[in-house]
Amino acid sequence: MSKTLAILTGGGDCPGLNAVIRGVVRAATLKHGWKVIGILDGFDGLVEGPRVVPLDLGNVRGILPKGGTILGTSNRGNPFAFPVRENGEVVLRDVSGTVIENFKKIGADALVVVGGDGTLKIARQLSTRGLKVVGVPKTIDNDLRGTDVTFGYNTAVGIVTEALDRLHSTAESHHRAMVVEVMGRDAGWIALESGIAGSADVILLPEIPFDMGRVCEAIETRRQRCCRFSIIVVSEGAFPKGGGKVVQATAEQTHGVERLGGVSRFVADEIERRLDMETRVVVLGHVQRGGTPSPFDRILGTRFGTAAVELIEQEKFGHMVALRGRAVDAIPIEDAVGSLNRVDPEGQLVQAAEDVGIMMGR
Amino acid sequence: MSKTLAILTGGGDCPGLNAVIRGVVRAATLKHGWKVIGILDGFDGLVEGPRVVPLDLGNVRGILPKGGTILGTSNRGNPFAFPVRENGEVVLRDVSGTVIENFKKIGADALVVVGGDGTLKIARQLSTRGLKVVGVPKTIDNDLRGTDVTFGYNTAVGIVTEALDRLHSTAESHHRAMVVEVMGRDAGWIALESGIAGSADVILLPEIPFDMGRVCEAIETRRQRCCRFSIIVVSEGAFPKGGGKVVQATAEQTHGVERLGGVSRFVADEIERRLDMETRVVVLGHVQRGGTPSPFDRILGTRFGTAAVELIEQEKFGHMVALRGRAVDAIPIEDAVGSLNRVDPEGQLVQAAEDVGIMMGR
Amino acid sequence: MSKTLAILTGGGDCPGLNAVIRGVVRAATLKHGWKVIGILDGFDGLVEGPRVVPLDLGNVRGILPKGGTILGTSNRGNPFAFPVRENGEVVLRDVSGTVIENFKKIGADALVVVGGDGTLKIARQLSTRGLKVVGVPKTIDNDLRGTDVTFGYNTAVGIVTEALDRLHSTAESHHRAMVVEVMGRDAGWIALESGIAGSADVILLPEIPFDMGRVCEAIETRRQRCCRFSIIVVSEGAFPKGGGKVVQATAEQTHGVERLGGVSRFVADEIERRLDMETRVVVLGHVQRGGTPSPFDRILGTRFGTAAVELIEQEKFGHMVALRGRAVDAIPIEDAVGSLNRVDPEGQLVQAAEDVGIMMGR
Amino acid sequence: MSKTLAILTGGGDCPGLNAVIRGVVRAATLKHGWKVIGILDGFDGLVEGPRVVPLDLGNVRGILPKGGTILGTSNRGNPFAFPVRENGEVVLRDVSGTVIENFKKIGADALVVVGGDGTLKIARQLSTRGLKVVGVPKTIDNDLRGTDVTFGYNTAVGIVTEALDRLHSTAESHHRAMVVEVMGRDAGWIALESGIAGSADVILLPEIPFDMGRVCEAIETRRQRCCRFSIIVVSEGAFPKGGGKVVQATAEQTHGVERLGGVSRFVADEIERRLDMETRVVVLGHVQRGGTPSPFDRILGTRFGTAAVELIEQEKFGHMVALRGRAVDAIPIEDAVGSLNRVDPEGQLVQAAEDVGIMMGR
Repeated sequence: MSKTLAILTGGGDCPGLNAVIRGVVRAATLKHGWKVIGILDGFDGLVEGPRVVPLDLGNVRGILPKGGTILGTSNRGNPFAFPVRENGEVVLRDVSGTVIENFKKIGADALVVVGGDGTLKIARQLSTRGLKVVGVPKTIDNDLRGTDVTFGYNTAVGIVTEALDRLHSTAESHHRAMVVEVMGRDAGWIALESGIAGSADVILLPEIPFDMGRVCEAIETRRQRCCRFSIIVVSEGAFPKGGGKVVQATAEQTHGVERLGGVSRFVADEIERRLDMETRVVVLGHVQRGGTPSPFDRILGTRFGTAAVELIEQEKFGHMVALRGRAVDAIPIEDAVGSLNRVDPEGQLVQAAEDVGIMMGR
Repeated sequence: MSKTLAILTGGGDCPGLNAVIRGVVRAATLKHGWKVIGILDGFDGLVEGPRVVPLDLGNVRGILPKGGTILGTSNRGNPFAFPVRENGEVVLRDVSGTVIENFKKIGADALVVVGGDGTLKIARQLSTRGLKVVGVPKTIDNDLRGTDVTFGYNTAVGIVTEALDRLHSTAESHHRAMVVEVMGRDAGWIALESGIAGSADVILLPEIPFDMGRVCEAIETRRQRCCRFSIIVVSEGAFPKGGGKVVQATAEQTHGVERLGGVSRFVADEIERRLDMETRVVVLGHVQRGGTPSPFDRILGTRFGTAAVELIEQEKFGHMVALRGRAVDAIPIEDAVGSLNRVDPEGQLVQAAEDVGIMMGR
Repeated sequence: MSKTLAILTGGGDCPGLNAVIRGVVRAATLKHGWKVIGILDGFDGLVEGPRVVPLDLGNVRGILPKGGTILGTSNRGNPFAFPVRENGEVVLRDVSGTVIENFKKIGADALVVVGGDGTLKIARQLSTRGLKVVGVPKTIDNDLRGTDVTFGYNTAVGIVTEALDRLHSTAESHHRAMVVEVMGRDAGWIALESGIAGSADVILLPEIPFDMGRVCEAIETRRQRCCRFSIIVVSEGAFPKGGGKVVQATAEQTHGVERLGGVSRFVADEIERRLDMETRVVVLGHVQRGGTPSPFDRILGTRFGTAAVELIEQEKFGHMVALRGRAVDAIPIEDAVGSLNRVDPEGQLVQAAEDVGIMMGR
Repeated sequence: MSKTLAILTGGGDCPGLNAVIRGVVRAATLKHGWKVIGILDGFDGLVEGPRVVPLDLGNVRGILPKGGTILGTSNRGNPFAFPVRENGEVVLRDVSGTVIENFKKIGADALVVVGGDGTLKIARQLSTRGLKVVGVPKTIDNDLRGTDVTFGYNTAVGIVTEALDRLHSTAESHHRAMVVEVMGRDAGWIALESGIAGSADVILLPEIPFDMGRVCEAIETRRQRCCRFSIIVVSEGAFPKGGGKVVQATAEQTHGVERLGGVSRFVADEIERRLDMETRVVVLGHVQRGGTPSPFDRILGTRFGTAAVELIEQEKFGHMVALRGRAVDAIPIEDAVGSLNRVDPEGQLVQAAEDVGIMMGR
């Protein structure tokens, strides 16, 4: 039976979103003969408007290697607590009723929601309100439970590793300590994996509160033994032992240079002060999110897109796709949201890092 | 107790070999205080000589981002059937006794063998002869059983995908069919994954004998419907239905342009003949093996290297490291060799390719 | 006074063509308020049809980083000798009258022709027949006189250099000679510059007939002195001293792997035969043309595009834009066509190559 | 007659320095049979010590694709005003006598100084004091007079352009203004060229004081007409009309994120305030200097290195090498230092940028 699907992308942009959109459109069109409608700017496009575009094979031609999302992503956010200007003030209102009404207006049978923890929570709530929703997980930090990994993360690790490769030559030529701040508010995956791949000397994660004295000892030992430079990779959410977060920052601010003056600045200042060593800070910021997705992310996005179409075919609403080992599976959305996938300080990956002599802050 | 390890790399070179060597040297030195000896040019360095170099932290500095292997790899090969010139003729001799003697001479307690199916078979045979061996799997084609994936493969998929991205612009500007031959004698993983990631229109694998008539139909339908160009990705080991291999070639010849005149030439000629469409062949050849390893391969190589040192610490000789899901495990070498990890024609990945409209030759 | 421009791209595709198209459209639209018409598939679009598309700001959005040409390029060719099927045979006819008529039909005031030697010759002939033409030079080989360099060449050198970087690790790990065939039928610029940048040991150009004996001596000396591997970069048009071209090939065939069995195969066979050294051939082929243009080519293409619009504003018809030092100038088209910009065997660049020990075949 | 050369690299590191060192060593060794001594850490290695390393073919093997400088670069600086700790205070002393003495001690006949404006000034002063010096110009900002361009700049433009390509997807997906701060204290070449190549909408240079009102108008017009996002590229030395520098910063601080709170922050705040548009800042910082040099920079570095050896052969002391058009020439060092190569606000390149609709701040 012919169907009409709708799809939206929510939250921060991520390489591979277009692969998902293309996968949904091509599988729906070519395999099932269904129609697809794109909703613009995440849930915003269902709160206002509805603002939609029809999606066919022509619309998705050539988007696989493109970063970002052709649908735009939401800037205002949660329909259950939507910022509305009333009497000159901004108040939060539940506009989920409008969302459901607008969804009916566009005449779609089911909705594919691509997003992270926040967006999937909304999807789940709408699902309990009767909307036929399937989810596709997205998190550039790799901090989402329920799936081994999602698209975007592999590309981000690639970009950071390339930056570390570049910074090595400057650090080495100038005998400097180089403190590189990378994404990861709550989970240190990007710092950990790109640090191992990029030959970092020190890696600091939110999961392991760091001891600044021991960090400095490690850099000094290294300076004595062999190398007058060090590369320190720091998750934006890392913090010193006993110290709480160095800077309290809102979500919006932490994924960019706005947080400068945060943990990387703190670490650099301490190294300069304690070791009298020239130190520089680099905050990679938004470049980590952008650009063409890696092959891994293009493939995973494509698989997630086609699998989401299968979930709809099987009427497994309230579920989302997930990668388990080498297989794409379906799990209830509620199993993925609300708790985080964090680095295990005693796990194999941290162990391998320490085995090759990387100082993990402890 | 202090130990001395030896390490050798055998078979075709592969991005990530240096990560393994560095991982072994750093973990052995920094964690255990052991010594490491590098054996040159694979088993050749134990047949002749012995030819060895001491490996310390200085030797492995800066090699993580480098392709190939600093130890060289074997060109002559199997010590159980080693080519020796006798009375002007080349005959194959069992020189494994020399290998074992030479290994004693260098005074190592255990040997880390990094290699593919052929090299690991030798390692297992030597193990049954009493040599204390642990294995690290290597295969750029991803055709080795026992491990989900090995290093090098991810880099190769990245290089091929980048080439496909590039070829799209030429194909599209000139309205051509472009036939791209990639590595994969027995298993089509590289063609399949890079084909999905690089927006191929047709992918031909050794696992799915192709029907040339249907391939041409698909290209023609595409030409009628939307696009006057097509990208066809072909594993070097693909062959037409009922046709047997297009070209019989030795192992040495198949992984490079020497096989031109093989399957990609055949496919191109048929497209030109049947569709009267300008067609070009590109044989990617040795560039697929080279260059800096991807972050994934650097990390996996590092993990395999440190895990191999743990196997020796635990005296799990005759075993090799392997990736299972997200964990590095140990398995008996014999469980990995002798049969291949091939693409499942009915598996999820082929299914996803077909769902987005890629013609898989059938 | 408001004008309407037409633009076409002819000959082999080249990174930077879209930058030219975008430059023309944006300068014409934003600076002058003129209209622009795109002619499809080079002069073919004026012989048949006319086949055209309107070009406005929307059409050229996002094309700057894209290789190839959104207008397509000609496959059939020269309107003064156009292949036409008559009585079952293909004969060449002068259809330039049709071209001029069709140009009138589309109502354009002037035509921007982007192309190489062949395409610009046609442009000049049409100019003498009264068509208001300005030219933009294009040659990926850098073999066009009249301009210091054109777009596309810098990107090609970058792609080849990256391939040489990659091949180094394989060559070194396996102690092989690696013969790499690159574009350059008549001029060896790509081989020379990428060879210097990519640490080649031997570079063979069409401008310096090579002495195979001395090439082998150089490789052997190198093998004795330090390195058991060598990288040999060969222009597709290189040939041995006294030997004439190794293979006579048509223009269509030489820019791709079709010529395998040509000069690179010859060089490899000689090295294997004379030195008993394992040797591999890599023919880079079409990947050299593709992919995103380098910043240099994007900028030069943009400058050429805007300068072409100025030529029309100044009514300098029959002229083409050209780079001289750091300035974009105008020269008569006839000063650029008919003779080639070839490498000077006694020039500074060859001298620098020989100073750092690169063997230039002599 | 056999000679011994010395070489040092001074000032900020730059991709291509190793190409120069390699060019000098290979040409001196292979062509002339001379010896080469490397001085460590710029002039510091002659003030203290002397600290030197012998340089032969082995030392420079494999360094061509590496960023930075294997010799290290100076952190303390000018021998004519060298910071010395006396009685607990740091005072500046003329230690040029020590430099000349130490130079005699190492037994070299001539010195190759690779550096920017500051380093070359020192070289010239030492030259007037009798030291046999030849210069090689280095400036990543391209702000040195006397040479059309130097190595490092092309690589930096490539890195920034790649970052702009990446940022486009985020900007577009989130409908944001993205302010990207790049190197260029006194000259805006990097911002200008990477801005044109990377499709910037606004480019702000030190050479054109910007009018914030008109910048905002341009962004608003663009938002109305077509695109809800804008990319603004800002040289670190740009400043608003009539406003003087936004932040006074020392030389050391300006080439990194330390200056955050500087001009890019100012521009972003004004856009947010005046247009109520979500805006993000990215400060690219040290990644712009690092990584493998582009082919152009490898070739230019190699040519400069070999040409410097020729200057010594010809005893043209007090001169430096320079690129003029396509030729490498020699000019007196004094003709290059003391004044800057800045962007001409009325020149062709700015004109081309404005022709394609880029807002240049005026």
